[in-house]
Amino acid sequence: MKYCSDCGGRVLLEIPPGDDRSRYCCQQCRRVHYQNPVMVVGCVPEWAGEILLCKRAIEPRHGTWTLPAGYLENGETVENGARRELMEEAGASALEMTPYGLYDIPHIGQIYMMFRTKLKDAEFKPGPESLKARLFSLDQIPWEELAFPVIRTTLENYYRDAAAGTFSFHIDNITQRLAEIDTGP
Amino acid sequence: MKYCSDCGGRVLLEIPPGDDRSRYCCQQCRRVHYQNPVMVVGCVPEWAGEILLCKRAIEPRHGTWTLPAGYLENGETVENGARRELMEEAGASALEMTPYGLYDIPHIGQIYMMFRTKLKDAEFKPGPESLKARLFSLDQIPWEELAFPVIRTTLENYYRDAAAGTFSFHIDNITQRLAEIDTGP
Repeated sequence: MKYCSDCGGRVLLEIPPGDDRSRYCCQQCRRVHYQNPVMVVGCVPEWAGEILLCKRAIEPRHGTWTLPAGYLENGETVENGARRELMEEAGASALEMTPYGLYDIPHIGQIYMMFRTKLKDAEFKPGPESLKARLFSLDQIPWEELAFPVIRTTLENYYRDAAAGTFSFHIDNITQRLAEIDTGP
Repeated sequence: MKYCSDCGGRVLLEIPPGDDRSRYCCQQCRRVHYQNPVMVVGCVPEWAGEILLCKRAIEPRHGTWTLPAGYLENGETVENGARRELMEEAGASALEMTPYGLYDIPHIGQIYMMFRTKLKDAEFKPGPESLKARLFSLDQIPWEELAFPVIRTTLENYYRDAAAGTFSFHIDNITQRLAEIDTGP
């Protein structure tokens, strides 16, 4: 950030009065521009015991498999955001959405909110950001070709919960170290 | 938003290619400036069956009672954000934090993530943004003087869960209509 989005003046990193950390402060109108983490919403969509994954048609991680997820938009609820992403990326509709996990990724300023859901029917097709949409049984999940650590962690939790027969709400911190580990469950 | 924070050029609301909604687009460098909901993190802090509330020393809603909560900062986890707010607003430290509720407030672009927790000890004192910090038994909660609908909803859920003897994770939508209703449980 170099310029104030309000007045076009130059901004500098300074600690505002009464604050305890650096913010972008406009040198002309004095407005403080706060920067906050961004929320990503998505789901684990199930059909007859299998999970719907999408093969990414966009960077980053073009060609890898992911759960339908994307940035929450202003004016929508987290549940509606997750439903929108499921439709946009996989052309699918879901029944009830159950909160399933909250994942912090502090080093990139993202928070993922993931739901569990069952598809309404067996209809799905890749959207513009997906090369393919495909159902995988839990024993066929392409662990070595997943897009992001948070997708792996969500699916690992799901795999374990399904094996145990009990699904509970998870809250996990996706650290930079975890992001570098590349092994399946 | 009037100016591009990258190059200082003018921005206009336009639908970018491949998108389906209006975004602020720079007319000079073509950068698209996305705007997303902001996350607020907080907790319901308990000590010996009573709840710690803070009386706001700042606007909006100066003088009303609230749970310790505030904007999540870049680089921190939701749990650490909730702990920081508890320390900043009420001078208190918590034991384990249990995820307790996710509240959508789409008409103001906020998402609240609330935890349940027990205080580490009976030490607390109002921070610079609080006039008072005080323990309330569940039957003494000042329902008519709470700061925001999301605080009311969180405390209503807590009140009901405590009466039932079972706490579960809540996900609720704080609509504009709910925000105008002013009755206690």
